[in-house]
Amino acid sequence: MLTDIEIAQRAKMEPIEKIAEKIGVKAEELEFYGNDKAKLSGAVWERVKTNSDGKLVLVTAINPTPAGEGKTTTTVGLGQAMAKIGKKAMIALREPSLGPVMGIKGGAAGGGYAQVVPMEDINLHFTGDFHAITAANNLLCAMIDNHIMQGNALGIDPTKIAFKRVMDMNDRALRQVVVGLGGKTNGYVREDGFMITVASEVMAILCMAENLTDLKARLGRIVIGYTYDGAEVKARDLKAEGAMCALLKDAIKPNLVQTLENTPCLMHGGPFANIAHGCNSVQATKLALKLSDYVITEAGFGADLGAEKFLDIKCRVANLKPSAVVLVATVRALKYNGGVAKADLGEENTEALSRGIVNLGKHIENLRLYGIPVIVAINRFGQDTDAELKMIEQYCLDNGADFALSEVFAKGGEGGVALAEKLVDVIERTESRFAPIYDETLPIKEKIETIVKKIYGGDGVSYTAAAEKQIAALEQVGYGKLPVCMAKTQYSLSDDAKLLGRPSGFTVTVKEVRVFAGAGFVTVYAGSIMTMPGLPKSPAAERIDISENGVISGLF
Amino acid sequence: MLTDIEIAQRAKMEPIEKIAEKIGVKAEELEFYGNDKAKLSGAVWERVKTNSDGKLVLVTAINPTPAGEGKTTTTVGLGQAMAKIGKKAMIALREPSLGPVMGIKGGAAGGGYAQVVPMEDINLHFTGDFHAITAANNLLCAMIDNHIMQGNALGIDPTKIAFKRVMDMNDRALRQVVVGLGGKTNGYVREDGFMITVASEVMAILCMAENLTDLKARLGRIVIGYTYDGAEVKARDLKAEGAMCALLKDAIKPNLVQTLENTPCLMHGGPFANIAHGCNSVQATKLALKLSDYVITEAGFGADLGAEKFLDIKCRVANLKPSAVVLVATVRALKYNGGVAKADLGEENTEALSRGIVNLGKHIENLRLYGIPVIVAINRFGQDTDAELKMIEQYCLDNGADFALSEVFAKGGEGGVALAEKLVDVIERTESRFAPIYDETLPIKEKIETIVKKIYGGDGVSYTAAAEKQIAALEQVGYGKLPVCMAKTQYSLSDDAKLLGRPSGFTVTVKEVRVFAGAGFVTVYAGSIMTMPGLPKSPAAERIDISENGVISGLF
Repeated sequence: MLTDIEIAQRAKMEPIEKIAEKIGVKAEELEFYGNDKAKLSGAVWERVKTNSDGKLVLVTAINPTPAGEGKTTTTVGLGQAMAKIGKKAMIALREPSLGPVMGIKGGAAGGGYAQVVPMEDINLHFTGDFHAITAANNLLCAMIDNHIMQGNALGIDPTKIAFKRVMDMNDRALRQVVVGLGGKTNGYVREDGFMITVASEVMAILCMAENLTDLKARLGRIVIGYTYDGAEVKARDLKAEGAMCALLKDAIKPNLVQTLENTPCLMHGGPFANIAHGCNSVQATKLALKLSDYVITEAGFGADLGAEKFLDIKCRVANLKPSAVVLVATVRALKYNGGVAKADLGEENTEALSRGIVNLGKHIENLRLYGIPVIVAINRFGQDTDAELKMIEQYCLDNGADFALSEVFAKGGEGGVALAEKLVDVIERTESRFAPIYDETLPIKEKIETIVKKIYGGDGVSYTAAAEKQIAALEQVGYGKLPVCMAKTQYSLSDDAKLLGRPSGFTVTVKEVRVFAGAGFVTVYAGSIMTMPGLPKSPAAERIDISENGVISGLF
Repeated sequence: MLTDIEIAQRAKMEPIEKIAEKIGVKAEELEFYGNDKAKLSGAVWERVKTNSDGKLVLVTAINPTPAGEGKTTTTVGLGQAMAKIGKKAMIALREPSLGPVMGIKGGAAGGGYAQVVPMEDINLHFTGDFHAITAANNLLCAMIDNHIMQGNALGIDPTKIAFKRVMDMNDRALRQVVVGLGGKTNGYVREDGFMITVASEVMAILCMAENLTDLKARLGRIVIGYTYDGAEVKARDLKAEGAMCALLKDAIKPNLVQTLENTPCLMHGGPFANIAHGCNSVQATKLALKLSDYVITEAGFGADLGAEKFLDIKCRVANLKPSAVVLVATVRALKYNGGVAKADLGEENTEALSRGIVNLGKHIENLRLYGIPVIVAINRFGQDTDAELKMIEQYCLDNGADFALSEVFAKGGEGGVALAEKLVDVIERTESRFAPIYDETLPIKEKIETIVKKIYGGDGVSYTAAAEKQIAALEQVGYGKLPVCMAKTQYSLSDDAKLLGRPSGFTVTVKEVRVFAGAGFVTVYAGSIMTMPGLPKSPAAERIDISENGVISGLF
């Protein structure tokens, strides 16, 4: 069996201008990055902005398990399958982060015969968007410390700097650092820390920005910290937003690539789905809707995190109306939720399946609350038995969701035809009555409680004293009416990673609340959130290599 | 008068494939980055490697002063002028570093009517080469700390880690840091520091590497530190070189851009001229020699640093034979060397000029030691008087150098015709008998002493106890026969920045000696070298902006 990278390297890519042609984009509207990648110039939007919109389809998943769900693979395969059934479709994905590629997770361009290519480039530097975000983020940091060292005219309290440096690398040694050592010429000593680039507010801003003007205004609104008097200090107080925006002038343009079957894919932005909203850029999604009849997109982690934020933040703010949601699950992952050990997942176990399937059930229930039709896609593995699949299908129908098998990993678009046909059928016969789950004008606590009770299935919320204080302060400054962005473990519907299935009787503990004023939401931290991953004992980087002819191996 | 960026934005650029055509490179051999930048694929070298070589011309300068010399401007203008006189010429430059662009120095793509374009892109992210170097460098760092945390099988002594993290930013707060705080899950606490990306050995390696295979081997040879037993630990011991090389697969390809007058320019690599060798890549220079009759290149800082290392390291290792050297000076800088305050440099002062001109004299003398013909180019400023110019011309002729005025800043290629004609004339009538100044098989100390006595004009060298020990250790391991890479102040021929003109009677103090085994030289530190700049009180970044249509302002 071929590895993902071997399959990707055998792809028959079409020149990227041919891919552009399929969605009515002219070669002169492309900015090429090599032969297989291009950015879409601002001219495209101007030309197509009055086109009618295609149908927007979100691909999400049950809570992730070590068994693997294949959300991106399903997204890519579904896009490929739409072409097989004669539909004009494109895919809108997030860009992978370099850190995990070198660590344990690997790349994020799909898998098997449902991949986006050129796989190596996409997983390494791609078109440099994340490097630009790193530079813009770190320029602001350098300007903060420089401002304080050069006299601190703004009176910034060095112990209250909220904005951190970033690096697109899994580097745990940088999580907590002390900077400015070495005496007066190196500034002043303070505690600091690095996040991975995808966790930067700059990344979230790039994904929410409608255009260059909006991008600059949002960058200027970043709250970098507080003065000795407790007043907010913003990036614009440091006159940083112009240079930051100049650094992002190309990064803001969506990237066009293709799947193994030459389906057009816009891949743009990649904010963390724990501390940020975890969706590709608003610009890319909106542009894709103008360029094709169906847009298949995804959101990070499980539906309780990614889909909730896609629907309550991205769709609300950008005025998007999804037509359907595809909810990905695997037989293996549902059995894992039913208590089966990872090593035993290959064996038929309908009893465990019936215990674990309630996780799927809760996500179906949640997504229906938003008024959107739900299709469950089972990403099929070889060992799945008919009895298990039949059980899931019946469960879905009983719970108001449609059902389809997906075999895109092994068969590419052909393996997704059943899912694609089901999707089109559902969209044609069911009207989406999408509405967010909460009213954004509610007080912050009420918004949090709505999500915890309705989506997570918890009994309520408890707040630490610090969080109480932060919420009061944010509402006083006027951030009370922003959507909330929940940051919690992805492994459970609750804030306790160990509670699988469909937990109940729990309360969620909110430990910290921070405003991302540029991105336009209030992030609510339940539990401890890792914003800088580490490398495993034997990092993937050890096995990545390149031949004298430039052929890369070991990426996955 | 227009600013540099305004002039650049009015440039009539030709499509980059047209520029490629001028040097016989086919469109299918280009990897486009937008419409105005391209990388040359490896196929070009294979096709042209048996071509005869053009003439290599180095542009260098007197010791830099606050008065400004215009070395890059002269290099670009001379390239433009060569076309004006009907010669097939191209330029080979280093890429600018983003840090100084945001700080006080600004960009590095020439000035006035002698610039390389697209100026904004070149000064911001360009084709991402430096970001790739940052990523490769920092991957190795993450792997080092991860290895130690995960059991430290190699026995790396955390207090003897020589390889530092980098960032392409002027960020003094990162010069000295403590990493790994926060308890066991974040690794172990140790002192560390960040350098600016251009100071990375990875940058030096990229510039010395002949091809991908050589690049990987060099990366593997990086000495990252020492074990508790004092044995070297190399990047290849951590199995890092494959992934690092994969990250550099595109960065190793030279970048093609153009001047304001559509002269082809390869812009590739940019190692610091203080801790590294300060020249563009060997690959770009060699390729340029195959593609044109004249290649105009430059080296960093003054001739005592940049030219010495260009000649003794780059030309020696890469087997390059320069045909001539253009030595750039200004009337203003020579008067500054003669003791005139910066504010008074606009007034005629032949007496101060005659005191300061000895700096020029020493550089002429030095360059002639290498057996290469020298042409002094005076980068003309409006206030320069005929008497001053005449005095310099006579001085040059008396000291065995040719002389020409250059007005490329104000007039572009037309202003460099006299210099171009002089250059061609000198090359045609004078044979270069280039040889490096020292025999590389000499002991390290003898190589250092040769440079100090012959090039700097010093009496000798003193070594700290630490340096003595390091030299002995490096010779024992077998690094004794590598060229030496001098790291010292650029402002004086000595290691004391305050000694202007032609200092004598001084000794140079060597404080530290380190091997850059991957780059292939032993770096010798005389005085304190800054490897991470800081921002000034009012950084350039505060004035950089971008309009809603994407037009950048404030870059210089």
